Amino acid sequence: MEKGTPDIRYLFEPRGLAVIGASADDAKIGYMVMDNIVSTGYKGSIYPVNPKGGIILGKDVYRSISDIDGIVDIAIITIPAHLVYNAVSECGKAGVKFIIIITSGFSEIGNREEERRIVEMANRHGMRVLGPNVFGIYSGRMNLNATFGPRDIVPGNVAILSQSGALGIAMIGKTAKEGSGLSTIISIGNKSDIDESDLLEYLLDDHDTRSIFLYIEGVKDGERFKNTLKRVTRRKPVVVIKSGRSKRGAVAAASHTGSLAGSDDVFDAIMRQCGVVRAESIQEALNWCKYLSKAPPPTGENAVIVTNGGGIGVMATDACEKYGVKLLDDTDLTRDIFSPVTPAFGSTRNPVDITGGATAQDYNDALLAALESDRIHSVIALYCATSSFDMEGLSMMMEDIYSRYMKKGKPIIFSVLGGEKVEHAVNSLRSKGVPVFSDVYDAVQTLGVQYRQYHHQNDVVEETPTAEIDDNEVKGIIRSVYDDGRTFLLAHEAQKLMRACGVPMPEARVASSLEAAVRIADDIGYPVVLKIVSRDILHKSDAGGVALDLENRDELIDAYQGIVQNARSYDPNAVIDGVEVAEMVRKGVETIVGARIDSSFGPVMMFGLGGIYVEVMKDVTFRSWPMTRSDILEMIKQTRSFPLLLGVRGEKRKEIDLIVETMIKLGVLLDNNRCISDIEINPLVAYEQGKGIRAVDIRVILNEEGGPET
Amino acid sequence: MEKGTPDIRYLFEPRGLAVIGASADDAKIGYMVMDNIVSTGYKGSIYPVNPKGGIILGKDVYRSISDIDGIVDIAIITIPAHLVYNAVSECGKAGVKFIIIITSGFSEIGNREEERRIVEMANRHGMRVLGPNVFGIYSGRMNLNATFGPRDIVPGNVAILSQSGALGIAMIGKTAKEGSGLSTIISIGNKSDIDESDLLEYLLDDHDTRSIFLYIEGVKDGERFKNTLKRVTRRKPVVVIKSGRSKRGAVAAASHTGSLAGSDDVFDAIMRQCGVVRAESIQEALNWCKYLSKAPPPTGENAVIVTNGGGIGVMATDACEKYGVKLLDDTDLTRDIFSPVTPAFGSTRNPVDITGGATAQDYNDALLAALESDRIHSVIALYCATSSFDMEGLSMMMEDIYSRYMKKGKPIIFSVLGGEKVEHAVNSLRSKGVPVFSDVYDAVQTLGVQYRQYHHQNDVVEETPTAEIDDNEVKGIIRSVYDDGRTFLLAHEAQKLMRACGVPMPEARVASSLEAAVRIADDIGYPVVLKIVSRDILHKSDAGGVALDLENRDELIDAYQGIVQNARSYDPNAVIDGVEVAEMVRKGVETIVGARIDSSFGPVMMFGLGGIYVEVMKDVTFRSWPMTRSDILEMIKQTRSFPLLLGVRGEKRKEIDLIVETMIKLGVLLDNNRCISDIEINPLVAYEQGKGIRAVDIRVILNEEGGPET
Repeated sequence: MEKGTPDIRYLFEPRGLAVIGASADDAKIGYMVMDNIVSTGYKGSIYPVNPKGGIILGKDVYRSISDIDGIVDIAIITIPAHLVYNAVSECGKAGVKFIIIITSGFSEIGNREEERRIVEMANRHGMRVLGPNVFGIYSGRMNLNATFGPRDIVPGNVAILSQSGALGIAMIGKTAKEGSGLSTIISIGNKSDIDESDLLEYLLDDHDTRSIFLYIEGVKDGERFKNTLKRVTRRKPVVVIKSGRSKRGAVAAASHTGSLAGSDDVFDAIMRQCGVVRAESIQEALNWCKYLSKAPPPTGENAVIVTNGGGIGVMATDACEKYGVKLLDDTDLTRDIFSPVTPAFGSTRNPVDITGGATAQDYNDALLAALESDRIHSVIALYCATSSFDMEGLSMMMEDIYSRYMKKGKPIIFSVLGGEKVEHAVNSLRSKGVPVFSDVYDAVQTLGVQYRQYHHQNDVVEETPTAEIDDNEVKGIIRSVYDDGRTFLLAHEAQKLMRACGVPMPEARVASSLEAAVRIADDIGYPVVLKIVSRDILHKSDAGGVALDLENRDELIDAYQGIVQNARSYDPNAVIDGVEVAEMVRKGVETIVGARIDSSFGPVMMFGLGGIYVEVMKDVTFRSWPMTRSDILEMIKQTRSFPLLLGVRGEKRKEIDLIVETMIKLGVLLDNNRCISDIEINPLVAYEQGKGIRAVDIRVILNEEGGPET
Repeated sequence: MEKGTPDIRYLFEPRGLAVIGASADDAKIGYMVMDNIVSTGYKGSIYPVNPKGGIILGKDVYRSISDIDGIVDIAIITIPAHLVYNAVSECGKAGVKFIIIITSGFSEIGNREEERRIVEMANRHGMRVLGPNVFGIYSGRMNLNATFGPRDIVPGNVAILSQSGALGIAMIGKTAKEGSGLSTIISIGNKSDIDESDLLEYLLDDHDTRSIFLYIEGVKDGERFKNTLKRVTRRKPVVVIKSGRSKRGAVAAASHTGSLAGSDDVFDAIMRQCGVVRAESIQEALNWCKYLSKAPPPTGENAVIVTNGGGIGVMATDACEKYGVKLLDDTDLTRDIFSPVTPAFGSTRNPVDITGGATAQDYNDALLAALESDRIHSVIALYCATSSFDMEGLSMMMEDIYSRYMKKGKPIIFSVLGGEKVEHAVNSLRSKGVPVFSDVYDAVQTLGVQYRQYHHQNDVVEETPTAEIDDNEVKGIIRSVYDDGRTFLLAHEAQKLMRACGVPMPEARVASSLEAAVRIADDIGYPVVLKIVSRDILHKSDAGGVALDLENRDELIDAYQGIVQNARSYDPNAVIDGVEVAEMVRKGVETIVGARIDSSFGPVMMFGLGGIYVEVMKDVTFRSWPMTRSDILEMIKQTRSFPLLLGVRGEKRKEIDLIVETMIKLGVLLDNNRCISDIEINPLVAYEQGKGIRAVDIRVILNEEGGPET
């Protein structure tokens, strides 16, 4: 960003705004925007601009923006694309802070150059640009509806940022219909300048915004987006829909990490790591945001289901397992709390079944009992319409119960199944903000989202771990590879790199005599492997130059003599540099760890079950670097094969901590050396605790452009 | 079932029915049921029965069922539980065919004995019992609403069978509200006699029923249920909700197959195999059934999305991938079809984007173009509310387009996103039966369900495969195990059993001399394994009595002499019976195949990635026996590790067909010998094609009760 960048606050709280292209023709966007601004009672000054002059909607029209004598924080541009550059230029001279280009016809149809020119020029003038190709902005705090969408927006506490204009406009209507009040809705369009991260900076501190919904189709500056999201989700929930999840990013398959990291998997993992909840459908995203913008946060994990039907009680239990809602499981406690309000044929076990004969009063009593208990932290109240029930009474009871729960600060969520009357009551309750669903799964899922946010906000903030790496050595190795005209490391270079990072590899040293070989083998420990070292012998095995699994000194001596002899007879002229004595890699749990630079999100880490079948088993997880030790442990635990590391079938726990350390090293290495595009250890063999790990095979790829930053 | 079982048709089409416990007190169920029957215009004769006599709702009350002079196909019982036995007994004497016991207070509260007595007595009289603990039956064909639920049921083509009474009653209201007409709704309650399978027998041939929704909590006769479902789903779609999916059945963990076969996984696999679609929530189940009861079946796979917004188009594409809807992918074809109706800035590629500027007429034109093309088999029409759109026009257009599509027999499904007006139009269209959703994912999922049914009905019906098994040998082995007081087979018994089935195992023969050992080894082929055979030496390895990986005759001779010597010095008094010469099991793909008797569904087969970590990797699939070759192939393909069998990293394809044959053998074996409760081969090693398979380790468990059926 350039010097003189305006405070993003003035985009949401403009003191004055100009509509460039304001029109008296009600078929034109320049009219619709004016009409919305005027009729919603915008608290700042309104300056319509049109060279024709005149009066629009009671406001004097300025012929030019330079004629305006007042603060203009925002200029909204609705004129044709070819006129936009000059208009923006005039805004720059007039001291405008933000340009909102509603006009389309720029990069979305390939007209990238014009868009770039406008943004560059605007930035030079210290202005920032929203759009082009947007529907405008609504900001509840200023009573500002500067969109060409529907006029009636219900003010409230949900913020919506939409990359799609069409969806945004449709959502304005939908949220109004469902009574989910908005603090703001804003479309981002072509993201030529201002992006989600800029807008999130404002929403982070905006007291009117209690939950945020982002609809995005692509991310440009992923690293900033990620860092911003991490900060925002510590304070308020963020729900994201990213469409195009079925399309696999064009990731070069230079490594397992690359080919396994379909861009949507990576996106998904990173969102999770940022504490963002990902939704699939608009409906569920809006449901969650509406609920989260109103509901008090829970103070603990214990949820209780209260139902009048066994069937839906069991369905809700299924849903709780699916969506991670923990049900209070203390039979004595629930009996104490609910037995006074549960009939004989009912059940005081969670799900608490007050039976089909329950009246609204019975419901009320059971829900009040749950409200009073400090051991119950949230309630799922289910109702199945019976043939002889007073729906109006139930409806009043629910409204009353909801307000009592709100007052006490305990989450409650309702689900009601039935016919016309029930549906009518549900709609009326929803419009009053009572969280009531007509499907058990929708209700439980919404509470599950709240619990994810609860856990995320209650996680202890950990430091990003560091690792000791010999940075000069690393940069030296990388430089020599580039100098050699390569972008991949040879085996010995990769090993040198790992040594510079302190990653343990199978020990190996070259002996120039039998005595030296014995000494080295004693030092390394048996069993060992011998390999002839000779630049003249490429295919060591063919030459009989390899001996595996030598278990003691006698075997070593025999083998040493054998392979030297073999080599001599294979090629009498070969210069023999010595014999490599290497640790024999024992069997252990084969894992894979990898790291790569994602074009959008920067360093991305992979962990999984290693070996030659890694792409078959696909038992891998992803996270974005930087990450904490807990993040790494969690990604290791998420693999299906994690029990292998814990030790199954009587085996002992493996060196999980050393795997974590290795991943930290790779993360730090990549972060400090962005020219390394891919690094992968497969297998990284983990042994029982105390017995270490071994990086057996290492692949390192550099990017084409790079060169170490020295 | 006993002789004289009545035709199930009379339960749905009773010529006359008696209400035992009919009452003039409108708070009583005996009144509500009468009231519903009378006011819905039931086409048969109505006989209220009450010892008090009198007139109820204009009908003469009979003091006893024996007083009725007419056909009584059904007697509906609403009197207290302790009076039910006698009432049923009188019905038996009066020639009643079906008893519907609405009364509760039987097995659901532990009163199993009374329930059993009633059913036994009823069956003796040639009657069948529905219930107890049910809400009754609605049958559209007879205008019969014999429930105590809501009166207004919309007749139509969805049949609902519900094990939960409360849910059933709530669904009556919900379906009426949503305009999903019912052919029948019936509750099954305690399932003391009549179960889902009995009712499905009727629905199979019922022309009024075009889709079926089952809500079940548990299955009693799973094998019959399965066979019935298979027949029904060939003709009409069946949607099932089974609650309690999070609860794991109490399966004895005698084998991997057992411990991995959590009852819900097995249920899920079997439903899939039966062509049943499983729903999670009531709302989705009802959506699907309503749609499937009206929509014409597609004639091919090519779906096209028509949208006015890019964002929802992409979301729908994501949803198509998720729900298995194949999008037409022929750019030239879609350009030919849609370019006349798509503006310049739109896209004629699927999803076809007619842009935000599209009018109702434009929509109409695009959807008619899709209707006319024989290459397009189904259409997903999406609409995002724009600020200046004529919703009424769109609504009329959609209704008209829908009827044209219906006439032509091509499925179309709509999704509309917007505010109040849109919601109003959606509700009104839905009540007219137009399949319109307010969420893209819901719409696409519904079409996906239709395509699952399409594929299921178009699958070729295959014969159940057979296998040649030496049945006498099998029964002999099993008998000798039982005779020995065991329920598990020793290694040599299990091997004998596999030989009787023709399952290949590593070859092994006992040699009594070095010459014989050489002959056998030559015959089997090197490498071989030698093992000392002596009843006196239990721990062969400790005695130096095992030699592995002998690659040629020289090694064999050395090893033979070595292990005989070792054995002699280990225990000079041991009687040496000979030396076992066995094929050395080479490395191949380790699979696991298993079969077990599920307490409800009979033989259940498992296939997966074998080896010692099978319970860690959990890469297994299930199906119920009998199954076809295609079923087996499909279950093999479903495992994540299937590529290993296809051959990865340049390896050749493995003996998949021989795995299939082995599974058939196990299926037939279990089916014919139900006393085998568990059988498992792990690993079953598969080699490259032409190189066979080997059952390396075999475990066989018999049930406690059994004994071979000889």
